[in-house]
Amino acid sequence: MEKQQVLINGERLKQMIEEFADYGRTENNGVTRLALSDVDIQVRNHFKNLCENLGLTVKWDDMGNMYARIDGIDNGKPPVVIGSHLDSVKKGGRFDGVLGVLTGLEVVQTMMENDIKPQIPIIVANFTNEEGARFEPSMMASGVISGKFDKGKMLASTDEHGITFGEALKNSGFVGGKENRLDEATGLIELHIEQGPVLEKEKFEIGVVECVVGMCCYEIEVTGDSNHAGTTPMNMREDALFATNSLINEIREKMSKLDSELVYTIGRVNVSPNIHTVIPNKVVFSIESRHKEVSVIKEVEEIIQGLSHSVSNEVCKVKTTKLWDRDTVWFNDQLVESIEKSCKSLNYSYKRMPSGAGHDAQFIATYLPAAMVFVPSVNGKSHAEDELTYWEDCEKGVNVVLQTVLDLIGF
Amino acid sequence: MEKQQVLINGERLKQMIEEFADYGRTENNGVTRLALSDVDIQVRNHFKNLCENLGLTVKWDDMGNMYARIDGIDNGKPPVVIGSHLDSVKKGGRFDGVLGVLTGLEVVQTMMENDIKPQIPIIVANFTNEEGARFEPSMMASGVISGKFDKGKMLASTDEHGITFGEALKNSGFVGGKENRLDEATGLIELHIEQGPVLEKEKFEIGVVECVVGMCCYEIEVTGDSNHAGTTPMNMREDALFATNSLINEIREKMSKLDSELVYTIGRVNVSPNIHTVIPNKVVFSIESRHKEVSVIKEVEEIIQGLSHSVSNEVCKVKTTKLWDRDTVWFNDQLVESIEKSCKSLNYSYKRMPSGAGHDAQFIATYLPAAMVFVPSVNGKSHAEDELTYWEDCEKGVNVVLQTVLDLIGF
Repeated sequence: MEKQQVLINGERLKQMIEEFADYGRTENNGVTRLALSDVDIQVRNHFKNLCENLGLTVKWDDMGNMYARIDGIDNGKPPVVIGSHLDSVKKGGRFDGVLGVLTGLEVVQTMMENDIKPQIPIIVANFTNEEGARFEPSMMASGVISGKFDKGKMLASTDEHGITFGEALKNSGFVGGKENRLDEATGLIELHIEQGPVLEKEKFEIGVVECVVGMCCYEIEVTGDSNHAGTTPMNMREDALFATNSLINEIREKMSKLDSELVYTIGRVNVSPNIHTVIPNKVVFSIESRHKEVSVIKEVEEIIQGLSHSVSNEVCKVKTTKLWDRDTVWFNDQLVESIEKSCKSLNYSYKRMPSGAGHDAQFIATYLPAAMVFVPSVNGKSHAEDELTYWEDCEKGVNVVLQTVLDLIGF
Repeated sequence: MEKQQVLINGERLKQMIEEFADYGRTENNGVTRLALSDVDIQVRNHFKNLCENLGLTVKWDDMGNMYARIDGIDNGKPPVVIGSHLDSVKKGGRFDGVLGVLTGLEVVQTMMENDIKPQIPIIVANFTNEEGARFEPSMMASGVISGKFDKGKMLASTDEHGITFGEALKNSGFVGGKENRLDEATGLIELHIEQGPVLEKEKFEIGVVECVVGMCCYEIEVTGDSNHAGTTPMNMREDALFATNSLINEIREKMSKLDSELVYTIGRVNVSPNIHTVIPNKVVFSIESRHKEVSVIKEVEEIIQGLSHSVSNEVCKVKTTKLWDRDTVWFNDQLVESIEKSCKSLNYSYKRMPSGAGHDAQFIATYLPAAMVFVPSVNGKSHAEDELTYWEDCEKGVNVVLQTVLDLIGF
C-alpha cells in the first residue's frame, strides 16, 4: 500500500515569512537586514528562540553560522542540513535567503506534527553575511568554513563606518567555537528564490539546480584624447566613448554567436571627464560573463582579450584587465536526482537549470554533498523591495525539500 | 612709393605673455585665474597700470568689463576695439584669452613707437568672466552688455562657496558705471587661440574666422529594467546600456552622412545603478552637435528626435530632451575681408573657418561689427596646462590684427 504523502503547512510558512520580515521591514514592504546589524541580531535571536521552543539545540561556529539541530534515531550518521541566510541587502526583499532557513523550520515542524522521527539528525542552518552588503565579500562565512576565504582577512573586512566584521560579530554575541563548524553532512539542501525570470517565463513550478555557473569578470580601459567638442573635427578625434561603442558592438556580435545560455553584462561604465562639451579621453567599463561550461567561458575570454587589437577605425588604446573568475560548481548528482524525484512524486513541473547567482550552497558543495531548489521570482526581481515569490510557490518549494529530506532520512 | 610695413615686437609680446602668466601660474606652467579671484584682481590691476603708464585712460562698466582707451585724431568716430579676456579655467593655459588682450596692448605700443597717431580712438578691452569656470554661464559680461543675459540673474550666480558674482565683483573694486559699457565701435577684433587642431594639422598660420557655429544640445534618457547579471537570460533583458549602444550606432551612422564639417559629441554618460553585477536600468547621455548652417543642425535635430522610435531590438524606453540651442553668429563681412587682406599683405597662409567654440566676440557681434582671428593651437589643446601656441604664431596673429587696425583707422 502506498504511503500517504506528507505535506507542509503553507499557512504557517506564510506566517513565518511575514513574521521574519518584521525584522527590518521597509516602508515598501521590503527588508533591510544587513549582516550583524541590530535587526539581524534580533532576527537571529528570534530564530534561536523558535528553534529551542521546538526542542532543537542551537549552536554557532566561529563565523557566527547558526546550526539548529534535532537528533536522529542514529546520531552517528552525518546530518541532513537545510539552510540559507537571514541577512539581506539594503532595501531587499522578504524571501531572499530567509525562505531557505524557514524551509528548514517548516520541514522540522511538519515532521514533528506527523510523528516522523528522523533516522539521522537534521540541522537547520543560517549562514552569516551571505549578501556581503555590509561587509564584503558575499558568502563570507560559508566561504571561510569551506576554506575559500581567509578568516583573518574576513574578520578585518570593514563596513562603511569602519567597523570590522570581527568587531560586529563579537558585539552580536554570536562568536562560537570553531569545532561547531559544519564539517559533515549527508546532504545540504538550500531552497532559494530564483532571482531570475526563467521559471516564471517558462512556466515551471520548481527549478532543480544542477550547478552554480562559472564566470569571468574583466575591466576594459579605453584611452583617447580629450579635446573641445566644438573645435575638433570628427576625423581628428581620439574619442574614447565612440571607441567604446565600437568595442561593445564587437562584444555583442561575437558573444551572441556563442551558446544561447551564455549571459554577459556591461554593468559599470565610467566616462572621463564626463562633461558634455568635452570629447571623452577615457572610458572604463566592466564586462562579466557566466556559463556552466568551461569551454564557453574560455571563448568569452578570448573575445575579451582580443579587444585590444580591434579598435580598427579608432585611434584609442584598449587595455583589458581580468578582475577575477570562478569555476562552475556542480551539485551532488544523487541529491539533484533526489530533488527531481521529489518534484515528480509531487507532480510539480520543474526544470533542471544552472544558478547564475552565487549561493552559500556553492561553497558548501566544494566539501560536502549539496544541492539547491529554486522557486519562481515574479519578474525575475530580487535585491529589491518588490521581490516576490507567490505563497503557493513557496509552499511547493518547501514540499520538494520535505520530500527530499524524507527520502534522505529513509522515511 | 609703397609704405614700409609696420610690424609688432614679438619679443615684447612674449615677455608680456609670460609676465601675465605669472598671475596664477601653476606648477606645470599653466594658469589658474578664475574670474574675480585674487589673482584675477591682481592681473586686472596690472593691466590697468600698464595701460595708464602707456597713457591710456582705463574705465570699467557695471559688469567689470575694462576698456583702456587711446584717443584718436577724430574722437567723434566710434573706436576700434581689440580685446578678449584675462580670466582662465582651473589649470588652463597661458594663451587662452590673455593673448587677445595683450594683442591690443602690443598693437598700441607698436603704433606709439612708430609715431602712428590713430585717426579714431582705439580701445583695449578685457571682458569679465568669459570662462564661466567660477560663475556660470561663460561669456557672462559680454552677454549682459549685448542683452543676451539678464544682469540681475548674472549678479546672483554663485561659485562653489556660495559667493555671488555680484559680491565678488563689488569686492574686486571693478564695479563701474553702466554708461561705460561698450556701446559703439567701428569694429571689435578678438584674436584667440584656435582651441582646435585644424590650423596646425592643415598647416595654416592664421584662421580668419567667419562665424561662431550654431549648435544644439540634447539629453537622452534610456530606461530599461535592472536585473541580476547572472540569472537573467539575454533574451529576457531590458538592458539600458545595450539599448544605448544601439542608439549611439544609429547616431553615428546617420550623422556621418551629413556634412563633413558637422561635429557631434557624446561627452557625458551616466549609467545606473553602475554595478558590475547588475543589468543597467537607466542610461542618461548628452549629445551636442555644431555646424554653421541652420539646415544641417535641423537635420541633426530630426535624427535625435527620431531616436525614441528606433530602439528596434530592445525593449527600453527612450526620452529625448532638448537642453538648448543657439544660432550661428556671422561676423561682419567687411571686417573679415579686412583681416583676410591683412593676411595676404603679410604673406601668411590662412584659412577662412568657423569657430566651434564660443567667444565674447560672438555676443558683441550681435550689436556691433566684430570679427575674430585664430592662431594655431598645438595638438588642438586648450583649457589645459599644456595648451601651447608657438611664439612666432602669436606674433603673426598680432601682426594681422595690427595690419587690420591700421586699415580701419585709415593709416
